[in-house]
Amino acid sequence: MSSNFIGLLGGTGEEGRGIALRLSSGGQRVLIGSRSYDSASKAVNWINEQVGREVATAATNIEVVKNCGFLFLTVPFRFASAVIEESRDSFQAGQMVVDVTVPLSFEKGPHLLSLEEGSGGEHIRALLPSSVGLAAAFKTLPAHLLADIHEPLDCDEFICGDSSETIEKVIQILDGIPELRWINAGPLSSCRSLEAMTLLAIRLNRRYKSRLGRYRFLGI
Amino acid sequence: MSSNFIGLLGGTGEEGRGIALRLSSGGQRVLIGSRSYDSASKAVNWINEQVGREVATAATNIEVVKNCGFLFLTVPFRFASAVIEESRDSFQAGQMVVDVTVPLSFEKGPHLLSLEEGSGGEHIRALLPSSVGLAAAFKTLPAHLLADIHEPLDCDEFICGDSSETIEKVIQILDGIPELRWINAGPLSSCRSLEAMTLLAIRLNRRYKSRLGRYRFLGI
Repeated sequence: MSSNFIGLLGGTGEEGRGIALRLSSGGQRVLIGSRSYDSASKAVNWINEQVGREVATAATNIEVVKNCGFLFLTVPFRFASAVIEESRDSFQAGQMVVDVTVPLSFEKGPHLLSLEEGSGGEHIRALLPSSVGLAAAFKTLPAHLLADIHEPLDCDEFICGDSSETIEKVIQILDGIPELRWINAGPLSSCRSLEAMTLLAIRLNRRYKSRLGRYRFLGI
Repeated sequence: MSSNFIGLLGGTGEEGRGIALRLSSGGQRVLIGSRSYDSASKAVNWINEQVGREVATAATNIEVVKNCGFLFLTVPFRFASAVIEESRDSFQAGQMVVDVTVPLSFEKGPHLLSLEEGSGGEHIRALLPSSVGLAAAFKTLPAHLLADIHEPLDCDEFICGDSSETIEKVIQILDGIPELRWINAGPLSSCRSLEAMTLLAIRLNRRYKSRLGRYRFLGI
């Protein structure tokens, strides 16, 4: 846990590469994890090329968990439990995990999976060791937008978490991302609202033929 | 159903008076319904005074159901079933109801009531005669903002409904409201997202000490 890298578990998809790009724009260096080191390397090459300098390094997911204080969980929701399970023994007390997954299904039209805990974020809280802090962020931003470095974010994004301390520490990491305002949405149960907003954004993107639908919260 | 008035069932509270004000600003005339004619009269006096001309008329809820093609259900959610029940025999095929309620509870912190149908809007759909169309709108706008005619809305608001025809007809009624863009959120099940957004707005208003928190959807 000694490195200054921000870790991305399963960071090779559009969501993970997009968040890596935006964290890099905010001045962070990232460790891209994957089950396969080769996949991680490919993603790293793409990220470094996009940013124009060496901001990303490749690793396995387990190496990411061993070496990073801040870990973004950027796999699709259906793989989250397997990724956490394979790294279970490598988590360390005081680490902070940021869940960016949304429990969506596209069978018979987009909808949220019904989860006993009430939301994907709360489900992931139950899977993680209790000594690890959990926040949820980037839930309502389209992966397509995150991964296009030429497209300004120009919107608000919401963060919630299992303690004020976790939220504040994660906001410090995220605050450097240009053109993005972070709004503190309080307890982890706010994932119920944020994930429902992702679903709405997907429906609106389809209806209005966009891939860039996102939110601003006015009046605060 | 011959009048040109837009009906507000239980239109005497802040939400009902606020929507009456905004519909009036959009060129509509409104019939304010209440269980008690006296309460309706008081609300009507307040509305006409705010707008500066005779835009509102008082009635009982049952008279509103008998006389209006478009009916806004503006009671608190917990009274919705009683208001629909008392007017059950007066609804007519082809009427359009607009649900603006949100199934909130403030006991032990704000949260949404768990409803078998999945949302308040879908719950109300099950209570209404099937010959009546149902849309949901104004769910994410604070009553306090709606009721302050000097405060521009300056945001987006979402509408969903049980058919495209219902949504389109209701949008025609709402389109005259100044400084408000209507976004078509599709099927009535989008109430699950919209009601979750109301809950989030309440949490954010509390945290950021505002009463005017509201949404804009960018990128479409």
